[in-house]
Amino acid sequence: MLTLHPLLAEGRSTRAFDPYAEVTSQELAVLLEAARWAPSSRNSQPWRFAVGRRGDDTHKRIFESLAPGNRRWAARAPLLLLGAHLTSDGDRPLPHAAYDLGQAVAHLVVQAGALGLIAHQMGGFDADALHSELNLPADVRATVVIALGRPGDPATLPDDLRRRDEATRERQPAARLLLT
Amino acid sequence: MLTLHPLLAEGRSTRAFDPYAEVTSQELAVLLEAARWAPSSRNSQPWRFAVGRRGDDTHKRIFESLAPGNRRWAARAPLLLLGAHLTSDGDRPLPHAAYDLGQAVAHLVVQAGALGLIAHQMGGFDADALHSELNLPADVRATVVIALGRPGDPATLPDDLRRRDEATRERQPAARLLLT
Repeated sequence: MLTLHPLLAEGRSTRAFDPYAEVTSQELAVLLEAARWAPSSRNSQPWRFAVGRRGDDTHKRIFESLAPGNRRWAARAPLLLLGAHLTSDGDRPLPHAAYDLGQAVAHLVVQAGALGLIAHQMGGFDADALHSELNLPADVRATVVIALGRPGDPATLPDDLRRRDEATRERQPAARLLLT
Repeated sequence: MLTLHPLLAEGRSTRAFDPYAEVTSQELAVLLEAARWAPSSRNSQPWRFAVGRRGDDTHKRIFESLAPGNRRWAARAPLLLLGAHLTSDGDRPLPHAAYDLGQAVAHLVVQAGALGLIAHQMGGFDADALHSELNLPADVRATVVIALGRPGDPATLPDDLRRRDEATRERQPAARLLLT
């Protein structure tokens, strides 16, 4: 019986970060390296990242852009990354840029798992406000916030979030994925 | 010194498929399972796949939709998958569906590497023609074709393609990825 590679099977998106543990600069560098070597349409590499480290201004701005539900737990993450993509490359549109960013972040998150880190991706943030707060260029689209850190004690989470983290993951049956 | 996980570092997108080797049904099932368990916005799981196996009608239709440059080599791949995504979920738009598909395909391709398979993603195909040929629903967007199979002899490729496969991979310097 063939089984999923453990780094893909174990990708739980938990919220219980250790609020005292750090992610080292070397770890951050290899996370970004994983994104950097992802494939992309015509090798356009349209992904861009803003890196917030707990205590710095970017972490604070990213945190403040989060939806209230995400602000309940994400401050504990030592890293808050904004994942963004270019919308064009000079005159050339980049129709696959969001898809390419998805691949790059997937590689980053798989690498995080290989380092023993946990990652939680969020679409729930005010992209326009954060774009303005970080003074991002007009051709950059803020797409996802990724909380990264080390696993903490689930008992420190509010009860409802802990129950959500501990619930069995659910997906559609495999047959639903097939078009033909 | 921390280094990239081998499954992320070795992700070469080669074109030299063994034209006699098959991908088993079990292998295909675990590839789709990797995609199935990817994370997605609000767990919407908007990814969909059409599976072409060499010799069947879907493989032929996907192959015929490819740009001429891709038709030079892709017929040898035992699997040609179309990766697509839903554009809405009933009345609800899915603004992150292309991003989510990118994550699912990245997981599928990492899993392919774990199985000793090679994968090559292509944006160069006639998405509208293939949408019509495969009678896809109106709310499905054909996004990427993925050739999958076992590594073959690079010497069987036309010279220019072999040189492209053997060229050193290039990426922007890491600092270019950072917004702040």
